[in-house]
Amino acid sequence: MSNQLPIDAIAANEPEKARAFVEEALGKDFAYVCVIGTTDTSLIPGITVAGASPELTTYTPPADVEYVLLGRCRCIPAVPVTPEGIPTPALITRASIKLSNAPALVAVGGLKVKPKTPYINLGGEHGGDIRTGRALPRETVSEVYERAKLLGRELSKACDFLVIGESIPAGTTTALAVMVAVGVDAWGKVSSAMPNNPHQLKSEVVREALRNAGIEPGSCADDPLAAVSSVGDPVIPAFVGLVAGASKEVLVIAAGGTQMGAVLSLLKGLEPDALENVAIGTTRWILEDSSSDLVGLVKQIGRVPILAAKLDFSQTSAEGLRYYERGFVKEGVGAGGSAIAAMLKSKGEISAKRIAYEVERDYASLITKGYAE
Amino acid sequence: MSNQLPIDAIAANEPEKARAFVEEALGKDFAYVCVIGTTDTSLIPGITVAGASPELTTYTPPADVEYVLLGRCRCIPAVPVTPEGIPTPALITRASIKLSNAPALVAVGGLKVKPKTPYINLGGEHGGDIRTGRALPRETVSEVYERAKLLGRELSKACDFLVIGESIPAGTTTALAVMVAVGVDAWGKVSSAMPNNPHQLKSEVVREALRNAGIEPGSCADDPLAAVSSVGDPVIPAFVGLVAGASKEVLVIAAGGTQMGAVLSLLKGLEPDALENVAIGTTRWILEDSSSDLVGLVKQIGRVPILAAKLDFSQTSAEGLRYYERGFVKEGVGAGGSAIAAMLKSKGEISAKRIAYEVERDYASLITKGYAE
Repeated sequence: MSNQLPIDAIAANEPEKARAFVEEALGKDFAYVCVIGTTDTSLIPGITVAGASPELTTYTPPADVEYVLLGRCRCIPAVPVTPEGIPTPALITRASIKLSNAPALVAVGGLKVKPKTPYINLGGEHGGDIRTGRALPRETVSEVYERAKLLGRELSKACDFLVIGESIPAGTTTALAVMVAVGVDAWGKVSSAMPNNPHQLKSEVVREALRNAGIEPGSCADDPLAAVSSVGDPVIPAFVGLVAGASKEVLVIAAGGTQMGAVLSLLKGLEPDALENVAIGTTRWILEDSSSDLVGLVKQIGRVPILAAKLDFSQTSAEGLRYYERGFVKEGVGAGGSAIAAMLKSKGEISAKRIAYEVERDYASLITKGYAE
Repeated sequence: MSNQLPIDAIAANEPEKARAFVEEALGKDFAYVCVIGTTDTSLIPGITVAGASPELTTYTPPADVEYVLLGRCRCIPAVPVTPEGIPTPALITRASIKLSNAPALVAVGGLKVKPKTPYINLGGEHGGDIRTGRALPRETVSEVYERAKLLGRELSKACDFLVIGESIPAGTTTALAVMVAVGVDAWGKVSSAMPNNPHQLKSEVVREALRNAGIEPGSCADDPLAAVSSVGDPVIPAFVGLVAGASKEVLVIAAGGTQMGAVLSLLKGLEPDALENVAIGTTRWILEDSSSDLVGLVKQIGRVPILAAKLDFSQTSAEGLRYYERGFVKEGVGAGGSAIAAMLKSKGEISAKRIAYEVERDYASLITKGYAE
């Protein structure tokens, strides 16, 4: 693993392309957009901890973006936490964006609960449980993809590079299903916000989904939006459309963990040139996760660099954050990619340590005052 | 009327401030956002020609932004026209933005019919007929204002100056009502898309609205959002919030005709410092309209410069566009301000003539192919 980057990040794949990406983006302005969505798949007990209970997972994406934009949540009384009380990675995202003075926007793939912030509607809807094999109407998936492409085109005119994050509980399970449907061997390779990755449950859900959709592994390779319609979620077409639209003009950081495998595999089918202008931005915690394999997923798809922010919460005084060092949460809301973008824009002046300090301060403020400054 | 500007525009008010504004914005990048909304007020026969029939006026704002973003309409089969078939000023907006390669976004104050494009939801709703005296719930107005302020803040980080346009049929009537409610003498001063400005009808509607709302002229001066809730429309709080949020960081062109009087009068009450960073951007046709008085409205509110694009369609081969020279349409969808922004960004290289040529070409393409390139 080579690393001579001028920022606190590891080049975890395609090190030369990663360095070239960093060099091109260094000192440049970015815009951040968070794609949010929900799916009934997150109600399956044990599938996700992105919320204190399965029912609360539908509030997590809107609450995440409320926190990023406002420093407090409005649709729930406090920031999203796991059942153990470990806070959302939106803390990292907000700190990184605030330090960078970067614009932040919200794009909705499809939601049950709407955020009480400005948000960009892309014509989508909340997704069904993928076990039905009918997650989203096919025309909705196409419409969201096309509108997101248009949005990506417009946003590319307003920044030097674009950072796209996501928040969707159970998103790794739907990503697994979509990747298998388009022909990526993703079994046992997606990550989890839990240290004990429930691979068996995810695989059972995905097998049932594929069976009910009449999909064999790889049978959607020529029609990847059909995979999303059958066994995907509303974030995927929005995210892929944004990358497809923006990457014609600017560099794009696809900010996330193993779900980015689904994004890249769709791009490969729909807009292969886009892969030339994309890097995955993630966290050290994803790379170090022995229960998943982001690099192994990406290598199957294309030569896309992976940058991982060397975030470290081991020295933080906040117990909730120290859990990140024990394999909880790891990534989400574009946390890793936002941190990398902040480092890039500031030419490395904003360090991983500076971000961790800011997160710690915000977390303390949340606990004492109920909001971050 | 002084005019030594390096662009094809007239400084119609506060010439020194206008020149300073132009100097500061020259060569800079802008973003364009169109605020759209609808109100049942537009269904009153004779009040507006922003649509081929009163019923079609609810389609005009979504169709306008579809045309700006896509070069074609989706919610109706062709671009919005007056009952005489005169086309929407969105033609000017699209031409100006396209020539500038500027980002364009859509913000929704409240609509009956949604555009088939990405659009930013601000938590608003379609407005009621103001004659009821209850146009919009008070909490909705405040929510839209606050969310728009947040959006303005984010957009200000992504551009050097912001151009805000609007599309709402019957918008001059609701603007008249709001201006009177906050204490501006606006009677007989608002413009119309018709050469025969129906001042009598507008005044009757507004008097009925104020009577049913229990509002005396000026009685809402200390609570301007109450005026919007009683006798306004969903575009006003969104537009005002955007200006309030963005003008803390960047210059803002409030792009429109006499409706901008309502915007400025609310800013004066809610965020008076914002008036220092705002110019109205409009068209020559508004200035030359003897049936309305934009300058007279603005002078009552504050020292805000007015820039009017010297657009001229008298030589165009397209008959529909030549009607603009006979007092039809005049302004809308931020046409004048977009044209000025295009001139500013290009340091005058994009001339009024160049924009008129582009509009003519797009209009020909619309007629022959059904879309603009």
